[in-house]
Amino acid sequence: MEHVAREKGTSIVLALDPVLGKPQRLLEISTKILEKVHPYICALKINRQLVLPLGLFNGVQKILRLAQEKGLPTIMDCKINDVGYTNRVIAEYYFKAGFDAVIANPFVGWDEGLKPVFEVAKSKRRGVILLVYMSHNGAPEGYGQTVRDLKTEGNTLQYVAFAQKALDWKADGAVVGATYPEKIREVHSILKDSVPIFSPGVGAQGGDIKAAVKAGARYLIVGRAITLAEDPAEAARRIRDIAQNV
Amino acid sequence: MEHVAREKGTSIVLALDPVLGKPQRLLEISTKILEKVHPYICALKINRQLVLPLGLFNGVQKILRLAQEKGLPTIMDCKINDVGYTNRVIAEYYFKAGFDAVIANPFVGWDEGLKPVFEVAKSKRRGVILLVYMSHNGAPEGYGQTVRDLKTEGNTLQYVAFAQKALDWKADGAVVGATYPEKIREVHSILKDSVPIFSPGVGAQGGDIKAAVKAGARYLIVGRAITLAEDPAEAARRIRDIAQNV
Repeated sequence: MEHVAREKGTSIVLALDPVLGKPQRLLEISTKILEKVHPYICALKINRQLVLPLGLFNGVQKILRLAQEKGLPTIMDCKINDVGYTNRVIAEYYFKAGFDAVIANPFVGWDEGLKPVFEVAKSKRRGVILLVYMSHNGAPEGYGQTVRDLKTEGNTLQYVAFAQKALDWKADGAVVGATYPEKIREVHSILKDSVPIFSPGVGAQGGDIKAAVKAGARYLIVGRAITLAEDPAEAARRIRDIAQNV
Repeated sequence: MEHVAREKGTSIVLALDPVLGKPQRLLEISTKILEKVHPYICALKINRQLVLPLGLFNGVQKILRLAQEKGLPTIMDCKINDVGYTNRVIAEYYFKAGFDAVIANPFVGWDEGLKPVFEVAKSKRRGVILLVYMSHNGAPEGYGQTVRDLKTEGNTLQYVAFAQKALDWKADGAVVGATYPEKIREVHSILKDSVPIFSPGVGAQGGDIKAAVKAGARYLIVGRAITLAEDPAEAARRIRDIAQNV
């Protein structure tokens, strides 16, 4: 992803999460947006908004092929948080369909948790991106809570513990919501250049592009601010330019 | 689900999680097992092992229709943990496909987290079951951690806080791993008869049926101990009998 971002001069990851609709229409809209927007983005992120109605090995794979034609890496935002036996199968299916990376929740833990996901990813040379602090209002309830550090026995914050796991487990990315720029700054001070920060929540959710980039976000995940814009290409270009000129 | 369990005299929820294989074969195996096992179970739980290869509105819906014919309620084990905008869509698709309940992770919080899931469920008279303590080795890392209670400012345990959320949010069930019977006991002392405990992890994962039921599990979620048995019907009947005679 890094070389695509550098070559194209963009750090925008398109979140293709169209609202409910007939499958055929969802596929058409998705294809249309991707065709318009691809010059301004460095990756494509897909979520259950497309997987459930279109089917992974059906409509979603068509979108993945289009992304590949355009030279775009693809991320499945499945937020894996099941037992290892199931997590492994989930990761295998998404990688088999063509995704380059999956997003997972470190809350589920390592042993019989995310270890199998990292193993599958490593064997197939794909990526695992960990949730560290999400972008919604309720995020402080879990991601922001104070927890006891098992090593020091002192208090720490959940997202600080998750950032540490991202380092320990050699994750390929960490998600921190653009709606909490001070958390991006804190997480970036832990991860430095070892694990890049992906930041969702600019636009529809209220996050500020400049503040997120200044705080240390390497990639901005943008959905509705592009997909619902009257001119998605123009919106993507504008957001790219704001992010590039921080 | 309660009346099905009472009428049939069984507390076994079948987890239909077959291993990787060709979609057509997965559908055949699933149908075959369900045809054999249905007299001994009170509900069917499906996970991504079927949704990803078969497609929700394709093969999975065929299995759901068969379950409905047999009078079995169905649970989608999607462990919802995304932002509310996406969680709502996930819940809507699963309910539209015919599921009676979805499983969700309370870690994501209420506001813009699980609130939309409970709203959708309530409007469609479906259920939401919350994860309280999972069954795998790594569960203590997150579910077992010590956290600061936001109300009392004192220390509490994550799963105790989750059990409290299950009460506050009026969940229709709470998942506690059979591999941790002492956690079932503790959670049951909080939930009492208000929220039934669903307990996965007997059999392949090593949980003991009697210990789980004695500790307060109302339903046992059983997968591989039935689906991989030489005679799935016999295995289901045996597990049902052990659970009924505690």
